[in-house]
Amino acid sequence: MLQALLVLLAVALPAATARAEDGYRLWLRYAPLEGPALADLTRRPLAVQIPVGGAIPDNPTIRAAADELQKGLSSLSGRQVSLMKGHDAETRADHAIIRLHCARSEIAAGGAFSIRQSSRGLDILASEPIGCLYGSFSLLRALSEGMRLSDIGRSEAPRYPLRMLNHWDNPDGSVERGYAGSSIFDWWKLPDHLDQWMIDYARANASIGINGVVVNNVNASAMMLEPRYIARLKRLADAWRPYGIRVYLSARFSAPRDIGGLETADPFDPRVAAWWKDKADEIYAAIPDFGGFLVKANSEGQPGPGDYGRTHADGANMLAHALGPRGTVIWRAFVYSEHDEADRARQAFAEFAPLDGQFADNVILQVKNGPIDFQPREPFHPLFGAMPDTRVMLETQITKEYLGFSTHLAFLAPMWKEVLDAPTGHGKTVAEAIAPAGMAGVANIGSDRNWSGSHFDQANWYAFGRLAWDPSLSAEQLAREWAAQTWSREEGFVADISAMMLGSREIVADYMTPLGLAHLMATGHHYGPAPWVCDLPRPEWNPCYYHRADRQGIGFDRTPGGSNALADYAPIAAARWADPDRMDSRYLLWFHHLPWDWTFPDGTSLWQTLVQRYDAGVAGVAQMQQVWAGHEGEIDARRHADVADFLKIQRREAQWWRDASIAYWQSLNSLPLPDGTRPPARSLGHYRALSFPEAPGN
Amino acid sequence: MLQALLVLLAVALPAATARAEDGYRLWLRYAPLEGPALADLTRRPLAVQIPVGGAIPDNPTIRAAADELQKGLSSLSGRQVSLMKGHDAETRADHAIIRLHCARSEIAAGGAFSIRQSSRGLDILASEPIGCLYGSFSLLRALSEGMRLSDIGRSEAPRYPLRMLNHWDNPDGSVERGYAGSSIFDWWKLPDHLDQWMIDYARANASIGINGVVVNNVNASAMMLEPRYIARLKRLADAWRPYGIRVYLSARFSAPRDIGGLETADPFDPRVAAWWKDKADEIYAAIPDFGGFLVKANSEGQPGPGDYGRTHADGANMLAHALGPRGTVIWRAFVYSEHDEADRARQAFAEFAPLDGQFADNVILQVKNGPIDFQPREPFHPLFGAMPDTRVMLETQITKEYLGFSTHLAFLAPMWKEVLDAPTGHGKTVAEAIAPAGMAGVANIGSDRNWSGSHFDQANWYAFGRLAWDPSLSAEQLAREWAAQTWSREEGFVADISAMMLGSREIVADYMTPLGLAHLMATGHHYGPAPWVCDLPRPEWNPCYYHRADRQGIGFDRTPGGSNALADYAPIAAARWADPDRMDSRYLLWFHHLPWDWTFPDGTSLWQTLVQRYDAGVAGVAQMQQVWAGHEGEIDARRHADVADFLKIQRREAQWWRDASIAYWQSLNSLPLPDGTRPPARSLGHYRALSFPEAPGN
Repeated sequence: MLQALLVLLAVALPAATARAEDGYRLWLRYAPLEGPALADLTRRPLAVQIPVGGAIPDNPTIRAAADELQKGLSSLSGRQVSLMKGHDAETRADHAIIRLHCARSEIAAGGAFSIRQSSRGLDILASEPIGCLYGSFSLLRALSEGMRLSDIGRSEAPRYPLRMLNHWDNPDGSVERGYAGSSIFDWWKLPDHLDQWMIDYARANASIGINGVVVNNVNASAMMLEPRYIARLKRLADAWRPYGIRVYLSARFSAPRDIGGLETADPFDPRVAAWWKDKADEIYAAIPDFGGFLVKANSEGQPGPGDYGRTHADGANMLAHALGPRGTVIWRAFVYSEHDEADRARQAFAEFAPLDGQFADNVILQVKNGPIDFQPREPFHPLFGAMPDTRVMLETQITKEYLGFSTHLAFLAPMWKEVLDAPTGHGKTVAEAIAPAGMAGVANIGSDRNWSGSHFDQANWYAFGRLAWDPSLSAEQLAREWAAQTWSREEGFVADISAMMLGSREIVADYMTPLGLAHLMATGHHYGPAPWVCDLPRPEWNPCYYHRADRQGIGFDRTPGGSNALADYAPIAAARWADPDRMDSRYLLWFHHLPWDWTFPDGTSLWQTLVQRYDAGVAGVAQMQQVWAGHEGEIDARRHADVADFLKIQRREAQWWRDASIAYWQSLNSLPLPDGTRPPARSLGHYRALSFPEAPGN
Repeated sequence: MLQALLVLLAVALPAATARAEDGYRLWLRYAPLEGPALADLTRRPLAVQIPVGGAIPDNPTIRAAADELQKGLSSLSGRQVSLMKGHDAETRADHAIIRLHCARSEIAAGGAFSIRQSSRGLDILASEPIGCLYGSFSLLRALSEGMRLSDIGRSEAPRYPLRMLNHWDNPDGSVERGYAGSSIFDWWKLPDHLDQWMIDYARANASIGINGVVVNNVNASAMMLEPRYIARLKRLADAWRPYGIRVYLSARFSAPRDIGGLETADPFDPRVAAWWKDKADEIYAAIPDFGGFLVKANSEGQPGPGDYGRTHADGANMLAHALGPRGTVIWRAFVYSEHDEADRARQAFAEFAPLDGQFADNVILQVKNGPIDFQPREPFHPLFGAMPDTRVMLETQITKEYLGFSTHLAFLAPMWKEVLDAPTGHGKTVAEAIAPAGMAGVANIGSDRNWSGSHFDQANWYAFGRLAWDPSLSAEQLAREWAAQTWSREEGFVADISAMMLGSREIVADYMTPLGLAHLMATGHHYGPAPWVCDLPRPEWNPCYYHRADRQGIGFDRTPGGSNALADYAPIAAARWADPDRMDSRYLLWFHHLPWDWTFPDGTSLWQTLVQRYDAGVAGVAQMQQVWAGHEGEIDARRHADVADFLKIQRREAQWWRDASIAYWQSLNSLPLPDGTRPPARSLGHYRALSFPEAPGN
């Protein structure tokens, strides 16, 4: 017996050790517990039970919940956990039993759950199967963080109805602004072949509460509406349905013309409306719970109702009528025009605010967090709170188009919290203003083995989902719970790494666009600094448009003396940014154009402070390197080395950003560097000559 | 003790079972042995030893060999295998010891090895470290196939000096004719970050003897020659050097003009020659064992010496001079011109044959297996054997551009053997004619988790490498050894699956291009049938150019009455194909244009036989499905299901090929189908209207 076991062990061990940590398992590693937490979990044999009577028998969502519990508890406890159906549990008095009660009407609908201690172990209660799945993931999260089974009790409900990922994936497999390989959607092999990857994707999303996925780029190909793509989408919808995920499509507004054989896409043309109605019927015949359409219209060259002199509301309502109560039209507010001389930061407000109340009930307006475009820092978008009779949704960008791609470490929860917690001045915070709709995040997910291109970028996917579930969660809690699940639940590690994460986005803002500067990235791919670009045909594509720097000063005057973008905000909000002497300096140059020798209340000049911020950014990366190096050996070697490599890249590129930016500002203001400041390593000409035609994601 | 073991086992087991077979480990799975083979291997404890004295201490290649042996033997035996250095082994009289003797001058250089039984166990002998590595992989292969350690003894030497993969990977991550995801080379993160994937890639290549890799597309971007790419390539070269792999670059002939600041790329211009010399020096400073340049010149729009009125030899020799004895110029013979009215199958011969003897010693001419372009079947290229004073290399295509992409099962070893074994008529077989150079294969490797897009396409990578090592290996042996390592060494499985593999390429040829037809694929992406395309601007891009079918007959007359391409072959070879009545019918319509009612010696008409071949192809896929289904449960479920999904796709697409082709031929010849033959499922118009703009690899 002993010998047989030894042989078995010898066979099993190499397999176990060979399972290198490559990041694929995300935060769902269920790393074996140790010490008191393990002792607590293994006091009695564990079982998962689906009681009869209450639950719908053989419901795929409940099955997914039970499977996940069985897999997670087995891995956490190191013991096989059994699954019992019906009354079997009555006969197992020695077992601690996790019971799934998924039809308890006292729990709210829409995914809410309650976890309660019971005489037999622990009960997960919900009114619907999806609540049981969310509760199961919540329980596994608590255990993964190191909580004891006997201490866990919680009741949760999602704050928003829509918690969505927007994939900017093209049918050819490329991903716009993707830095994690190519698209995870293998359209070419669908619907015949569905990879396991697609199931693990759904598990990961469900574990953080995401319930909707737009599978294709907002710069949409009409091809995605053709029958063969609907058949492919149906396969995904069927696979994801047990995980509570509805599929959506980005719809190209000109599709009736592109693929429908009509010569127009005018929303007032009855043939156009009929085409969309037929298309919707065709989709719903295949996918009864199809979520709806996401539309980028009359923006950056995309077609839209404006092509026919119609308003955004005209276009959106026509599509909404085609969907009817079956689905939702999500209409993006991201519009700006080279023919509009107004400050780009004001254009979407000017175009959409007057339309408040004109959208159909099943239309949602999707508004980016800030009025420009996903910069390292922007003030919240003035449309939040300003359209009380419209359902408004927050669009965030999880993929780091403007924050260093996948090789710079930047934890974005603090950025999103900054927006969510902002009081709009219309009586609500942003988080409150979007309550009837929810949040969308532009996905950072690709074919890279670690899903997100870097291990730390997984944290942004995680934090996005968790905030869409509960925007009151603190960035610190999110960092801590993610780090504990993803790396190590050892307290010293979690404390250091979460602190590092919390400061990381500010560090990036400092070395790229300090003091409220914005959009100084190189043209097109947005890789690296190019504040000197001033000659692109569309004025608002030039960094110069945003920084407005010259010999005298720097910054965009959005006060009444300038573009007056401040007027788009409620007075109480605008007041926060009106006075350069009394405002949060991190927004300073977003709203004000100031002389280089303007002084802060503490007496330092704008120029001195600007240089200090750049230096603080570079030093911050060095500090992150140090923190990370200090934890070598505490986690698996491969992932540690991956992150160390990336921090090295970030360190070098932070220096590049700092040096190139300072060299350029000096070429304008001819000011000496503050005492003790290192001059840029190379000449401005060197930085200007750098060219990266192959930068990814473009 | 027992209890502690039980706990340990409980912890280890879930990890072991969780390691799903996803294809990543290729043929290097080292699946645990069972039965007598296991008993034989575990009779004594195993150790790997690097003796002192003989071997270079701490040589990275020997370390890689020892690591692989340790890992492989541990996995095969289920026991930890120890590694001993120096004389430790003398003290372990109870161990069976695998010894690596890597400086034995009696063994040939260049990778040869000998495996011999010894009093202590088994010795691997070589004159160089790389021979020890090849010997280690050979030993592990034999064990993986189920051979007993005590039965293994072999001496091998590679037949060819060059055994190369050509990657058609672009720096933006796309892969021309790639059906396995995007490029595995993450240039964007190199040189700072090297993924483990790159090491496993080198291991896989070394295990089958591949010793050179061209990392970028022959349709080359000059950017790859810029300093930042040389730095990136250096990191790959450093990582692959221990595995005996030299790196090569596809070089764009116009690079001196594109990135060098010159206004010409004329090979006779001394500034151009100096630019290439400097570029070579720059590369060799970073990569002392850089392999050289692969060049596609004056072909399909690529620049070349012809742009300046110079010959291919002029261009190649200029580059060869720049490299000097350090490296090799591999010059592709794949040229054809829309301005040349000669049969496309004759153009490369006409252009290159007269240049025999004019190429510098370090130039190799790389010739595709057939005179057109990697069709399911082509006669061997007439240049083989016809240039006795030129080193000629065989170029094969591992990626299945013309054989159904990654979803059709087609084992290509029989196709390559057909070429290798062909007598050229110049006194040598093709295999003999290429002896001074070797073989290149256009890689089918991408970012898909299983490397090749499908599990069975791994077999083509495997077989290519093994044939480049030893072209005398039979396709059957290759299928058997691959199947045993990759799936299961159970004899019933190996016999059935290898038989299925051996017939698979003929099946594809039958349903796509039977009886020597060629190039009937749709335009551009080559996905699906389009024999009806006749109106593309370049005549030789039209399927009609190749099939020449009309009301009366079908086929390309390459006899003296037609294009006389037969004249490019040595008389003895040409004689094999000269008489339609006495030739291998699988080449029939490649060489002959025949009336539809032409009859085979057995009395069946050409039209009847053609339809029969299509039906045989479709039936063959159904048969493969049946064989595969019969082995469900004998291997892991996930990979079995993956293959079953793909066979289903292949079945449907084979039917599509057959139906569309027959419908088109009928539209020309108005002939009824032979009795009992099923008519095409849809009208010709249906098939002609199908469009797949998103087909991959284009």
